[in-house]
Amino acid sequence: MKKINYMLGYKDINIVQDEDMFKFSLDSILLPTFISINPTCKRILDIGTGNAPIPLVLSTKTDAKIDCVEIQKEVYEMGKETIEINKKQNQITIYNNDINELYKEIEADTYDIITCNPPYFKVSDKNHINKNDYKSLARHEITLNLEQLLKISKKLLKNGGILGIVHRPERLVDILQEFRNNNIEPKKIQYVYPKKGKNANILLVEGTKNGKPGIKILEPLYVYDEDGNYTEEILSKFSD
Amino acid sequence: MKKINYMLGYKDINIVQDEDMFKFSLDSILLPTFISINPTCKRILDIGTGNAPIPLVLSTKTDAKIDCVEIQKEVYEMGKETIEINKKQNQITIYNNDINELYKEIEADTYDIITCNPPYFKVSDKNHINKNDYKSLARHEITLNLEQLLKISKKLLKNGGILGIVHRPERLVDILQEFRNNNIEPKKIQYVYPKKGKNANILLVEGTKNGKPGIKILEPLYVYDEDGNYTEEILSKFSD
Repeated sequence: MKKINYMLGYKDINIVQDEDMFKFSLDSILLPTFISINPTCKRILDIGTGNAPIPLVLSTKTDAKIDCVEIQKEVYEMGKETIEINKKQNQITIYNNDINELYKEIEADTYDIITCNPPYFKVSDKNHINKNDYKSLARHEITLNLEQLLKISKKLLKNGGILGIVHRPERLVDILQEFRNNNIEPKKIQYVYPKKGKNANILLVEGTKNGKPGIKILEPLYVYDEDGNYTEEILSKFSD
Repeated sequence: MKKINYMLGYKDINIVQDEDMFKFSLDSILLPTFISINPTCKRILDIGTGNAPIPLVLSTKTDAKIDCVEIQKEVYEMGKETIEINKKQNQITIYNNDINELYKEIEADTYDIITCNPPYFKVSDKNHINKNDYKSLARHEITLNLEQLLKISKKLLKNGGILGIVHRPERLVDILQEFRNNNIEPKKIQYVYPKKGKNANILLVEGTKNGKPGIKILEPLYVYDEDGNYTEEILSKFSD
């Protein structure tokens, strides 16, 4: 059922979501607070934007124009409605397209920043995936895999432009390899841990087009403290 | 000046070292406590062993036979003396050789585990390195670079055998790339932070020969607490 909720940590942002399709998650707050936004940044692209949480958080941090693309019609409609009820139509433009096709029509070296919360899982013969299922498309590399994302980013980023993604730590090696294969040098990583004593379960990576080798591993982030409450470091990512 | 010291955290281990040449460091304790040692492990190789700290810590954890190789004659002599004063000659054998030559004479698929605390820095035209300096050889990729280490490990490890290295986080992308290029799939990473609020400064990586893709990022380790004392998690790596 479609609902309008306040966005977690951002009381000024309303977000249209349908829990049967997919739910907005913490990943979408962490990515825009992780990436380096230069004050001279003019154009941002968010790929696979869903109901547009990443553009909305970005719009609280920069005046850059933000384009975003969502392939699924019904999800795009929610994203469009979300942008409208937050009165962000002048800053954020959402397209209902397959980025694999759309990027061919966009001029090279257009964006200062590209963000993406891509599908996490590889599609293998073992996966029995319903290709008409909204959640499957958002979770599995059916319409967008890492190779495609990096090829697109390589073309569309300006020289020195930044690609920032949120992903799963299990895929670290694939991710760094694809970044480098496409001349987007990984420069900054942050791992997110659900709580003390656990392995990391969220990976944030930023790379620079034609950047020099050499990466920084930032302080780890813990989501919950021992009492099951959000930690102060997570609360500091929220606006309220 | 050559001295005999207790090893940090290991009062039962005496170590022969010369601060003018190089000093034993925390890296050499972290690596043997990080790597996965199977009870069936029979043979271990430590490459660039220095005064043999890694083999000595390993010998407190396994009965496997440990070979170790050190290219510098004077450093090898200290390693040999260290092994003897600790009465480990039956378990640990040290060779004064260049592993780049020695490995050609060793049969393929010989070792269950290979460990290495390799030189960290790339040699570039900008580096003015004295090739006769002990510290330079241990720190810069003069006699052993990542590509060589992985080529050697690929040959000498058994199928399913483990390569464990300690390195600098800045080189993460190079490291994971070389591992995978040589069919040693990175499976486990741990980052070590000097203290809260800082970026990671030590990287521990373990890979498995012909392993399946998929890596775990373990809990971060902090070396010092806010008062400048070793943290409990670091003290737990020590035997005393």
